[in-house]
Amino acid sequence: MVDYETFELGDVVLQKGATLPNAKLAYKTFGKLNQDKSNVIVFLTYMASTHLDSQWVIKEGSALDPSKYFIVIPNCFGNGFSSSPSNTPAPYNKARFPLVTYYDNIKCQHRLLTEKFGIKKIKLVTGWSMAAGQTFHWGALYPDMVERICPTAGSARTSLHNFVMLEGVKAALTSDDAFKEGWYETQPYKGLRAMGRVYAGWGFCQAFYRKKEYLNLGYSSLEDFLVRFWEQWFNLRDANNMVAMMRTWQAGDISDNELYNGDFEKALASIKAKAIVMPGKYDLYFPPEDSEYEVAHMPHAELRPFDSIHGHFAGGSGLSEKDVKFLDDALKELLAS
Amino acid sequence: MVDYETFELGDVVLQKGATLPNAKLAYKTFGKLNQDKSNVIVFLTYMASTHLDSQWVIKEGSALDPSKYFIVIPNCFGNGFSSSPSNTPAPYNKARFPLVTYYDNIKCQHRLLTEKFGIKKIKLVTGWSMAAGQTFHWGALYPDMVERICPTAGSARTSLHNFVMLEGVKAALTSDDAFKEGWYETQPYKGLRAMGRVYAGWGFCQAFYRKKEYLNLGYSSLEDFLVRFWEQWFNLRDANNMVAMMRTWQAGDISDNELYNGDFEKALASIKAKAIVMPGKYDLYFPPEDSEYEVAHMPHAELRPFDSIHGHFAGGSGLSEKDVKFLDDALKELLAS
Repeated sequence: MVDYETFELGDVVLQKGATLPNAKLAYKTFGKLNQDKSNVIVFLTYMASTHLDSQWVIKEGSALDPSKYFIVIPNCFGNGFSSSPSNTPAPYNKARFPLVTYYDNIKCQHRLLTEKFGIKKIKLVTGWSMAAGQTFHWGALYPDMVERICPTAGSARTSLHNFVMLEGVKAALTSDDAFKEGWYETQPYKGLRAMGRVYAGWGFCQAFYRKKEYLNLGYSSLEDFLVRFWEQWFNLRDANNMVAMMRTWQAGDISDNELYNGDFEKALASIKAKAIVMPGKYDLYFPPEDSEYEVAHMPHAELRPFDSIHGHFAGGSGLSEKDVKFLDDALKELLAS
Repeated sequence: MVDYETFELGDVVLQKGATLPNAKLAYKTFGKLNQDKSNVIVFLTYMASTHLDSQWVIKEGSALDPSKYFIVIPNCFGNGFSSSPSNTPAPYNKARFPLVTYYDNIKCQHRLLTEKFGIKKIKLVTGWSMAAGQTFHWGALYPDMVERICPTAGSARTSLHNFVMLEGVKAALTSDDAFKEGWYETQPYKGLRAMGRVYAGWGFCQAFYRKKEYLNLGYSSLEDFLVRFWEQWFNLRDANNMVAMMRTWQAGDISDNELYNGDFEKALASIKAKAIVMPGKYDLYFPPEDSEYEVAHMPHAELRPFDSIHGHFAGGSGLSEKDVKFLDDALKELLAS
């Protein structure tokens, strides 16, 4: 049972040179597009996730209210639903899946919105983590189309520290011999689990573990949390898809394109959208000082950090009611403005 | 050519139950023990290091001046010089090497100092990272013997976040099939390199990478730094030794013994030594707030953080002249008091 739709992109020439034949963009919509097409929200997907993991945010009474808005969730390339190593036929299958950038993602999402739905204005683009990276790209690549953005726990340009952190996660995954340089027939489960265990120290901050918050989340011990939450998250994923998404993430930079030619500050300054930028105060790989820099260079942006011991996970995981409300309030305020 | 001595410990009954037969404590001394044995400094070794990596600190004019002090560097168990998986005969060889705690390390180091040298007072115990963990243990286990301590970028009890971070490092190392659950004949180089790549994001902070400090350290690119500094550090090590030291580290707790029965605050309060506790302000796995807590519970302690973008490495790596001087000044002040 497929609960989503697929937009056929045809052959897509990617930013870094490859041509992805018969590329597919999987998406799901909620609510109805109104007469003047003025009620569009784009809600993006994060690393190792699909629309299925995010759609809990969309409900009546919340900011992303499907009775008011037409909400589109385009799945990020590499996530297994849109074109990915796991579903692309040879020659670009598995280990040969090319680097797809955020730029490529947003260009294709733009085609979906304009060609399929005739949308000219987007009321809000939002998302957490890798989805925040995409959110910034929407703002910079289509400044006249995007009215508001709310990126949470993410960045407009992947920092070098974040790049290195991802190198570690990739190394843990790929040091399993079963990975076979991407040419496996059976998933490298040992590597996927190792990846989860490496991620565990990054995803939540020191205070989260100090206060044993995992016990409040329904885990019976620290090891239970490492196995049932972290190992299992990646245990259910395709290894090449994980690598593909991390490569996308590592290459993230709103200015790495023909519009801005690497001028990061110019790209930030070009974002016309009203923005609330929401880092996690204790996020270990998207530290708030990077968001502060971004906000300082954006014309209509406000910095509003999550003061939460959920670290990176404050930004969109739904694990903390307080964080969920803090985000929902910000989105409502932004939508009302 | 062996440049160190070995203290034969005989059969050592370890804290967690195993008996290590014919255990060996490798050590090196600098300077001369004076008449009344009042000039003793114990300088400890950190993770994946031996006395060879630390002895650059010992030189005339510096705080650890061998013309004034008798300086002993005992090698931590598991480091390949003292009893370790790599040099212990069956049945406790390789994967079967037992958990050795900081408590075990300090008890054996105490035997070396008292049985071999007849030492009754130690002027100063100091060390970085895992060596700081040992330093705290010296203070808590022998409060009447240790006059001064200076732990840098380490903790009296390994935090749960730090525990998780090490789980990730271990997972990266051991997910290489060549590790063979510790029964390898040839080192699992892929895993050792993966371990280095995971460590890279932890060892230095966000600002270090943001400012590309690795270029100032003689590396030609970020990848060059990851390969020549991080991968190579562990590439030259024995995998089981690395696991053994990480297990020691993970079990670190000055109160986990018969003196304090898990009462951490009581153990901290029992440290009589005058202390300068020096966390790295931007250390990602020994965050300064944990040191603050320790200092608040120690009777004669001062908190003096390194304000350095070298993160964890501010504490003793010698990579930054400024950090080296900051530490040397603190040690001189402490020794003069």
